[in-house]
Amino acid sequence: MTFQSTLEEIYAEVRPMSGEGEVADYIPALAQIDSTKFGIAIETIEGECFQVGDAAERFSIQSIGKVFNLALCVGIAGDRVWDRVGMEPSGNPFNSLVQLEVEGGIPRNPFINAGALVVADTLLDHLDNPNEDLLDFVQKLRGSDVHFNQKVVNSEKQHGHINTALLHFMKAHGNLNHEVDDVLDAYYHQCSIEMGCAGLARSFLFLANGGVVPGTGARVLAASQAKRVNAVMLTCGFYDQAGMFAYLVGLPGKSGVGGGIVAVIPGKLAIAVWSPKLNSHGNSVLGIKVLELFTTRTGMSIF
Amino acid sequence: MTFQSTLEEIYAEVRPMSGEGEVADYIPALAQIDSTKFGIAIETIEGECFQVGDAAERFSIQSIGKVFNLALCVGIAGDRVWDRVGMEPSGNPFNSLVQLEVEGGIPRNPFINAGALVVADTLLDHLDNPNEDLLDFVQKLRGSDVHFNQKVVNSEKQHGHINTALLHFMKAHGNLNHEVDDVLDAYYHQCSIEMGCAGLARSFLFLANGGVVPGTGARVLAASQAKRVNAVMLTCGFYDQAGMFAYLVGLPGKSGVGGGIVAVIPGKLAIAVWSPKLNSHGNSVLGIKVLELFTTRTGMSIF
Amino acid sequence: MTFQSTLEEIYAEVRPMSGEGEVADYIPALAQIDSTKFGIAIETIEGECFQVGDAAERFSIQSIGKVFNLALCVGIAGDRVWDRVGMEPSGNPFNSLVQLEVEGGIPRNPFINAGALVVADTLLDHLDNPNEDLLDFVQKLRGSDVHFNQKVVNSEKQHGHINTALLHFMKAHGNLNHEVDDVLDAYYHQCSIEMGCAGLARSFLFLANGGVVPGTGARVLAASQAKRVNAVMLTCGFYDQAGMFAYLVGLPGKSGVGGGIVAVIPGKLAIAVWSPKLNSHGNSVLGIKVLELFTTRTGMSIF
Amino acid sequence: MTFQSTLEEIYAEVRPMSGEGEVADYIPALAQIDSTKFGIAIETIEGECFQVGDAAERFSIQSIGKVFNLALCVGIAGDRVWDRVGMEPSGNPFNSLVQLEVEGGIPRNPFINAGALVVADTLLDHLDNPNEDLLDFVQKLRGSDVHFNQKVVNSEKQHGHINTALLHFMKAHGNLNHEVDDVLDAYYHQCSIEMGCAGLARSFLFLANGGVVPGTGARVLAASQAKRVNAVMLTCGFYDQAGMFAYLVGLPGKSGVGGGIVAVIPGKLAIAVWSPKLNSHGNSVLGIKVLELFTTRTGMSIF
Repeated sequence: MTFQSTLEEIYAEVRPMSGEGEVADYIPALAQIDSTKFGIAIETIEGECFQVGDAAERFSIQSIGKVFNLALCVGIAGDRVWDRVGMEPSGNPFNSLVQLEVEGGIPRNPFINAGALVVADTLLDHLDNPNEDLLDFVQKLRGSDVHFNQKVVNSEKQHGHINTALLHFMKAHGNLNHEVDDVLDAYYHQCSIEMGCAGLARSFLFLANGGVVPGTGARVLAASQAKRVNAVMLTCGFYDQAGMFAYLVGLPGKSGVGGGIVAVIPGKLAIAVWSPKLNSHGNSVLGIKVLELFTTRTGMSIF
Repeated sequence: MTFQSTLEEIYAEVRPMSGEGEVADYIPALAQIDSTKFGIAIETIEGECFQVGDAAERFSIQSIGKVFNLALCVGIAGDRVWDRVGMEPSGNPFNSLVQLEVEGGIPRNPFINAGALVVADTLLDHLDNPNEDLLDFVQKLRGSDVHFNQKVVNSEKQHGHINTALLHFMKAHGNLNHEVDDVLDAYYHQCSIEMGCAGLARSFLFLANGGVVPGTGARVLAASQAKRVNAVMLTCGFYDQAGMFAYLVGLPGKSGVGGGIVAVIPGKLAIAVWSPKLNSHGNSVLGIKVLELFTTRTGMSIF
Repeated sequence: MTFQSTLEEIYAEVRPMSGEGEVADYIPALAQIDSTKFGIAIETIEGECFQVGDAAERFSIQSIGKVFNLALCVGIAGDRVWDRVGMEPSGNPFNSLVQLEVEGGIPRNPFINAGALVVADTLLDHLDNPNEDLLDFVQKLRGSDVHFNQKVVNSEKQHGHINTALLHFMKAHGNLNHEVDDVLDAYYHQCSIEMGCAGLARSFLFLANGGVVPGTGARVLAASQAKRVNAVMLTCGFYDQAGMFAYLVGLPGKSGVGGGIVAVIPGKLAIAVWSPKLNSHGNSVLGIKVLELFTTRTGMSIF
Repeated sequence: MTFQSTLEEIYAEVRPMSGEGEVADYIPALAQIDSTKFGIAIETIEGECFQVGDAAERFSIQSIGKVFNLALCVGIAGDRVWDRVGMEPSGNPFNSLVQLEVEGGIPRNPFINAGALVVADTLLDHLDNPNEDLLDFVQKLRGSDVHFNQKVVNSEKQHGHINTALLHFMKAHGNLNHEVDDVLDAYYHQCSIEMGCAGLARSFLFLANGGVVPGTGARVLAASQAKRVNAVMLTCGFYDQAGMFAYLVGLPGKSGVGGGIVAVIPGKLAIAVWSPKLNSHGNSVLGIKVLELFTTRTGMSIF
C-alpha cells in the first residue's frame, strides 16, 4: 500500500471523529478558524510528496515555530544554548511558572514558553534582525516563501500577559539579556508563521536527513545536532502529553495550538497534520489519531 | 571498527574518570560494593556477544528490574496496566510523593517507585507466585538461570520506609488491591535480581527484536507492545535525567542505583554497562559516558 | 445581656442554617451521627456555666484532641517539642504530604496530622502508658471522667492509610522514634475522646487562665506556655481556614471533623460549639457562625 | 518598672547581638544603610511616648506600608477588598508565584507582594491621586508630615521584575483592573514612605484604639474593621515566620525589609523597633528579639 492510499484511508477513517476537542480561543485570530479544516501531508527525503484534505492551506503553526527557533539557535550558538535552558520534560502545562520559580529561572526545556523565550533571547545576542533571519531560515528549509501573520502577532501581544510575566521573572533571576518587549516581538513572530501541511513537512525534512535540506543539499545543522533536536522533540514536544505521544506514535514531533502537528521519521520522511480542535493538553485530537494510525499501519517507529 | 574494538577503546578512555560520583549507600548491601568495578557488554539479535572489563560479574540490577516487571505485566494484562499508572515523565526524583498527591494516587509512570509498585500490585491480581514467575520470565529472556539476592531483599525491606509510605498513600486513594507487605515483597524481589552485563544485555534483546527472544524465537510481547515499552524507557527511564539521556545517547534504556544501565537499539542490539558510582540523579556516571561515546562513534541512535 | 440570653439568641438565629455543609464520612462512626445535633456551652474562669441545645451530649472531639496532645507534651518536654515540629501555618489541607516532603520530614505545625503524630511520638519517649496518661490529663482539666470511644479508634485504624503513609515518610526522614503502630495507637486514641460542649469548654479553661485549671488551682502549664499554645491555635487551629477564623472570630481555637469547635478568650472564658456539618475546609459551618456572632455581639476578641 | 526603663534595659541587653543577620541589599538605597542603627519607641493611647536609641531617625518602612495600604482600602471599599485577595497565611516566601498560579491569580493575603499589589489596584478604582491620598491618610494617623523617598521609589522600579511578573500574571488571570505601571507606581510609593520609630508607633495607634486616632479622635476604621486588620497582621504579618512571631511575641504586627517592625497591643499601645539586619525570613533580628523580651517582661500579650 502506498503512502497516498494509506493517508486517504486514515483521512476517511478519522474525519468522522472531528466533533471532539476545542479550538484554541485565547486570541480571536485563532478562535475564528474553521474547526472542520483537516489536512495531512508527507514529504520524503527522496522528494516524494503525498497530500490529502486541506494540506495546502496555510495555518498558524504557533508552537511548532519553537523548533525553528531552537534549530536556528543551535546552529549559531551550539551547545551554549543549554547554559540557559534545560532539556528535561517538564511534567507541567506549557506556561507554568511553578517550575521556573523552583528552579531559579532556568526553564525546563526549549519547548515550554519560558524556554522558547530564553532561546529567542539568545538569538538576539547574535542577530540584528531576528524576525527576518528566522524567516530566511525557514524559507531555506522549505524552499519557498514563508510569511508571518501580522494580525496574529498583534493579537498575541495583546493577550500575552503570562509570557510577559515569565520574562520579568527570568529577568529577576538574571536569565534574560535583552529588553522584555524585544524578546516578545521575536517570540510572537516565531509563533505567527503560517504554513500548510505540505510546506511544514518539507521544512522539517532536514531533521529526518541528518541536518541537511534534501534537494538543495544545504547543511543546516551537524548530524549530531539534528539528532539531538529530534531527541528534545521526543521527550518534550507535546507538553505534558509527551510520554503518551511517544507511546502511541513513537516519533519525534511537535504540536502547536493552531492544530498542527509535525513528526519526523529519521532517514525517511516528515509528516504534518492539521486539524484545529485540541485536547485538554493543547494537542490536535485528529492530529494525534492520524499519526498513531500511520505508524501502526506502516510499522514505522523509531522504537 | 568492530564492536569489540570500539568497546575496548571506550573502556580505556572512560576508565580514568572513575573518581566521579558516589556509590548508593542507602542499604549496606549496595554500599559495600567495590566502586571500581566496570564492565560493558553488547549482545546482538544475530547472536554475537562482545564484552570488556567486569562484564560477567553479577551485580544488583535494582530499578532495571522495573522493565521486567512492566514487560511481564503488559504481556499478561495488556493495556489495562495503564488504567492505574501513567506514561508521562515525572520531572521529579524517583521517590517523590508530591506528584502522587497532586494527581490523586495515580503514579506518573511505571519507572518511578510508585508506578513500579502499582505494576507489582497488578501482577498480584494475576499471579499466585509472583517472585517465581518473574524469575521464570527473566530466565526465559536470558536463556539461563537468574537469582535474587535474598540479603538485598531483606536489607531493602528494612530501609524502605518511603516505599511503604507510597503504598499506604495509594491505598488511601484506592489505587492498591493487595496488602502492603505482599506488594513490597514482590517489589523488593524484582529489585534484587542479580545479573552481569552480558546477561542483562541478552535479557533486553527481545525489546530490540519486536518482542521475540532471539535464539529461542519465543514471543514475549507483541511487536507494538515491545515498541511501547521502549518508548516508555526513552521518556521515563532515567528519572529526572531522561531528557539528557535521550539528548546525549539517543536510545531507550533504563538505569538502576546498583550502577547498571542497559539500552536498546531496535533491530540491532542491546548494550549494558556497569559502574557503581552514581551522579546526583542516581544514574551511573561511567554508564552514561560509555553509552554517549558508543552512539556517537557508531552513529547508532534512534534519532 | 447575659451570656445565657446571648447564646439562646444566637442559637435560634443560626439553627435554620443547618442545611449547609456535609458530615464527615471517612469512617462509619462519624458518618452515622445525627447531623442536626447542635449545642453551645460557655465556661468562665469564675466558674459560671451557660449552655444551650445539645451541649451535654458527648461527641467525638477528633482533632481538638491535638491540643490536649500538645499541651501534655509541652508540659513534659517543654520547648524541645519544637525540635521536631514547626509552628507555622501550613497553607495546605490537614493531611498533605507535599509540604512534608519539601521540608524534609519536619511537619509545619502540631495541628496538621503529621505534626500531631510527631507530638504523639515525642510523648512515647516519656510515657509508658500514653493513652491512660492522656486520659488522666484531660480528666484533670475537665474535673470528671473522660472516655475514649473504642469503636472510633478501631474504625480510624482501618481507614488511616494516609496517617500510616505520613509516619513511614517521617521514619524515612529520621523524624520518628517509635514503631508506626504504637504511634498510630496513641494518635487514634487522642482523636477518639468523647466529650460534650460543656466538658470541652471546661477542659480548655486552663488556656484562658494562664495554665492553671480554675477551681482546682492545678497548674498544668507555665503562663508563657499557655499563651504559646493559644498562639499556635490562632495561627494553625483551623487548617487552611486559620486566617479566616482569626478575621471573623478573632479568638484562638481548634476544630475537629466531629463538628466541634472550641475557642478561648484569655482571662475570661472558653466556649465550645458542636454541629456535625462541615465546610470544605473541615470546619463546622454552624460552629464558625456561632463564634463569629458571639464575638461580634459581645465585642470580645483578642484583637 | 516603667516602659521607659524596660525599653532601656532591653535596648542594652539586645544591642550586643547586632552582629547577626544581613541588611537587605536588593536595592542600593537599602544596602547603604548604617547597619548598627537601632531604635525603639512606644506610643500609648493615653498619649505617652517612650523612646530609646535611634527612635527619631527616619527609615524606609517598606512592607509596613502594606498595612496603611490595606487600612485605607478597607476604609473605602469595605469587605469588597476580600473579593480579590485572600486572608490566609501563605506558608511561602513573600514574593512566591507558585501559590498564585495554583490559586488562579488570587493572592493568599494582602501582606505578600501579590496581595498588596491587588490592594493597590483596588485603591486605583477609587482614588485619582493614590500617592497623595495615601500620604494624607498616613499624615492623619501620625499627626504630622510624612514623606516618600523618591530615590527609593526609583530604585525599586529598576529592580522590581518579580513584582512586574506578578502583575502580568494576575492580569492574565483577570485580577488586575489598571495598567501595570500605574499599580507599580502606587505600590512603590507605599513601600517608600520614611518614618521614625516614634512616628510609626503613633501611626499604628488607631489599630490599638478600635479604629480611632487617639488625640484627634478621628475615626479611620470601624472598630470591627480595626480588629480584623489586627487579625490579618497576626496571621500574615511576618511572611513565613508569622507563627513564630505569634508564638514568641504574641502580638499583631508587621515587618519591613528596611528593618522596621511595628506591633500593637489592643486597648493599650503600639511599639516600633528599627534595626536593619534581617534574618533569613526578611524580619529584623533585633526587632523580633526586642518584642519577645518586651512582651515576656511586661506580661503583655493578646493570648
